[in-house]
Amino acid sequence: MTVQLVDHNLSDKAVVRAARVSTVGQTHKSFLGKPGEDEDRDTGLIGYLMRERHGSPFEHGSLTLYVEAPIFVFREWQRHRIASYNEESARYRELRPSFYLPAVDRNLVQVGKAGAYRFEPGTAEQLAVVDGSLVTAYEAAYEAYERMLAAGIAREIARAALPVGIYSSMYVTMNPRGLMNFLSLRTHREDVAFVSHPQREIEMCAEKAETIFAGLMPVTHAAFEQNGRVAP
Amino acid sequence: MTVQLVDHNLSDKAVVRAARVSTVGQTHKSFLGKPGEDEDRDTGLIGYLMRERHGSPFEHGSLTLYVEAPIFVFREWQRHRIASYNEESARYRELRPSFYLPAVDRNLVQVGKAGAYRFEPGTAEQLAVVDGSLVTAYEAAYEAYERMLAAGIAREIARAALPVGIYSSMYVTMNPRGLMNFLSLRTHREDVAFVSHPQREIEMCAEKAETIFAGLMPVTHAAFEQNGRVAP
Amino acid sequence: MTVQLVDHNLSDKAVVRAARVSTVGQTHKSFLGKPGEDEDRDTGLIGYLMRERHGSPFEHGSLTLYVEAPIFVFREWQRHRIASYNEESARYRELRPSFYLPAVDRNLVQVGKAGAYRFEPGTAEQLAVVDGSLVTAYEAAYEAYERMLAAGIAREIARAALPVGIYSSMYVTMNPRGLMNFLSLRTHREDVAFVSHPQREIEMCAEKAETIFAGLMPVTHAAFEQNGRVAP
Amino acid sequence: MTVQLVDHNLSDKAVVRAARVSTVGQTHKSFLGKPGEDEDRDTGLIGYLMRERHGSPFEHGSLTLYVEAPIFVFREWQRHRIASYNEESARYRELRPSFYLPAVDRNLVQVGKAGAYRFEPGTAEQLAVVDGSLVTAYEAAYEAYERMLAAGIAREIARAALPVGIYSSMYVTMNPRGLMNFLSLRTHREDVAFVSHPQREIEMCAEKAETIFAGLMPVTHAAFEQNGRVAP
Repeated sequence: MTVQLVDHNLSDKAVVRAARVSTVGQTHKSFLGKPGEDEDRDTGLIGYLMRERHGSPFEHGSLTLYVEAPIFVFREWQRHRIASYNEESARYRELRPSFYLPAVDRNLVQVGKAGAYRFEPGTAEQLAVVDGSLVTAYEAAYEAYERMLAAGIAREIARAALPVGIYSSMYVTMNPRGLMNFLSLRTHREDVAFVSHPQREIEMCAEKAETIFAGLMPVTHAAFEQNGRVAP
Repeated sequence: MTVQLVDHNLSDKAVVRAARVSTVGQTHKSFLGKPGEDEDRDTGLIGYLMRERHGSPFEHGSLTLYVEAPIFVFREWQRHRIASYNEESARYRELRPSFYLPAVDRNLVQVGKAGAYRFEPGTAEQLAVVDGSLVTAYEAAYEAYERMLAAGIAREIARAALPVGIYSSMYVTMNPRGLMNFLSLRTHREDVAFVSHPQREIEMCAEKAETIFAGLMPVTHAAFEQNGRVAP
Repeated sequence: MTVQLVDHNLSDKAVVRAARVSTVGQTHKSFLGKPGEDEDRDTGLIGYLMRERHGSPFEHGSLTLYVEAPIFVFREWQRHRIASYNEESARYRELRPSFYLPAVDRNLVQVGKAGAYRFEPGTAEQLAVVDGSLVTAYEAAYEAYERMLAAGIAREIARAALPVGIYSSMYVTMNPRGLMNFLSLRTHREDVAFVSHPQREIEMCAEKAETIFAGLMPVTHAAFEQNGRVAP
Repeated sequence: MTVQLVDHNLSDKAVVRAARVSTVGQTHKSFLGKPGEDEDRDTGLIGYLMRERHGSPFEHGSLTLYVEAPIFVFREWQRHRIASYNEESARYRELRPSFYLPAVDRNLVQVGKAGAYRFEPGTAEQLAVVDGSLVTAYEAAYEAYERMLAAGIAREIARAALPVGIYSSMYVTMNPRGLMNFLSLRTHREDVAFVSHPQREIEMCAEKAETIFAGLMPVTHAAFEQNGRVAP
């Protein structure tokens, strides 16, 4: 799975600038002139905004990512509505035979019920069943797909055979607030007030997105962590 | 495919009530007391709001539908962000072996390119290829799915084998404005200012939703038609 | 200030119905047939959804309120974007001379700074200053407004003189999730994880809305309370 | 009134990049490498997307503006919900005595009714009434405001006296699609399919925003014009 930074205009300064308009009025001119100044005060303000759930200052900017992941991951991701998506279309192009197989360290077995379950490693036999079954299904699906296309059938019909394990690609754009909400729900931490249980595959994407985000907005990201990973 | 009315509180009167607050102030008391009165004036007002793109009066109310359709239809539907969704989860339950096959009257062949294409009927041979290929792929996929489940593999992993042609189910809730936007983009008419080219399968769902909507809000639906099916 | 129930289709059952589609598939038929059954199980499910931040099941339905409040309250309320608004228009009609004056029990004096302040009662002299000053300003504003209207000036220009303390009216429609977010941010409680500091006037409106909501969805409201008034 | 560009990452290329993922898959690497290439093809694609209402490619990027305008303008602007706002707060700071007066070329008289009205110049007498009335009301309001503040009354109460003609300031962030929707509804043109009737003051702000937008995304702006100023 791939998550790449394509474009952005994020900065911790943009949060401070937007928030200070409440109390100071116009703030962007001085901010443009004095980079690096008042950093402690800015860090304190960002922590305060996060704790007090003043979310709007975290919306001024956008991050565009390029993502390659299986359709079952995109199905979950695209339920986040405060975001913009453009995805490869199986109506407009023929999809490539690129399919998801779990890595050897993917826990395969679910123990417990909804609300209180965990995943544990599978045996070598179980891993073999997964690989064998998925490869068989993927090959049969793609063969059927190509047979239909060869017979002149429209792509939008032939695609019905394709599995949700096939890779797709998309551009997704979010603002920092929407991204933190995504990270909060799509990563699992035990030591937070609100524990999420995302599927491991979308969590792997979320982790890559978080690394990019933390690099671009280190102060905001640290405040998000300190706030128990609750989005403002 | 199934589209059923589950719950709603839609009415043409709600549009008029909301719009009249602009010019009259409180309007709901008199409206509750005088059903059926001033119908011509109401019809005129609704047509005016639609033409002038005063969209907000069409947002006060909600319609909940139960939908059964293949995943490739849900993938398109759920890109509409002014709506609420809850869908059957292949993480939480085992999906049933219910798959989409095109009806005999489904046009199978795409002629022309993006922006200027149409669909034409396939030959009997082509229909046979579609049916045969899809059934083969579906059977292989479901067999692989069951083999993995039988081996104790987590549902969320085993589902990767399942095709986007498998049926899922969801509850979707929209307000009238969001629904009209959905209908505008997901139905095809030649004689309108903005021509949409939806896939036939989601259009079939949209047609069922439109019938329900037209029954609940006949004046609004007629105004939508007269406005070239552009949502306000 | 006035907050009246105008229309709704809210119910705790709608939450359960939407949530169960994840694990059971179609649920609305049985629900329509067995009212009152399985209430404990439903209460448990709603509490679970709230704690786990499964917010989407709380979106299927809408509540329309009629509100009369000063413009400074509407300015705050309308910043909530997951909601639908239609408001009396000072472009289309002449506003009535109805203005906000604080009640005698409104705390008038702010002590402390942003992030750690509270309000305390004013003296009788302070209350007299407020009443006298506001009445003087309101009268001057409305006199200027009427003078301009009498001279044939367009309403949209004349209204510039009117104070944000003048009453306006609107219809607002929210779903239960959006409403809980509104209540969480616009009411003040000391004993919750996230303490909000709303202006008292919008809180008075929020309290009226909450009473209506609690009557319509008692199980959801109780779960919201038990969850520290954090919206799912 | 002031509308200034604060920050942005808009470009016509971003639209093309997002749209091409539908048919080509990953597109940003080649785009980063070949600026200026294929410009005619890009212009054609952007026009096609606009006409066909493929709106999502116009969402990848954000524009932040700093705006100073009277509260009655902000009241209209902030009804646009696909946008992010942070505004100067009269709860947190004392507002300055800066008020809106119409320029001499502002048409003062409304002729005709809702749906078919226009504005015409006022007489010299009418302009004098407007100026005199507004100044009188503004002075009375600000005097009452300062009297209350001097008596120790909380800012959030004292502000009730302030008129909607007082200037406020905000940062607003929109994506190109949201911005085009704003421009479509808040500017008046006679020769388009959907004629809007915005108040002149918000239109003046919209015109400034449009000039900025046209400079940053000239191809998209030209396509918006050619499409009758209907947002995609």
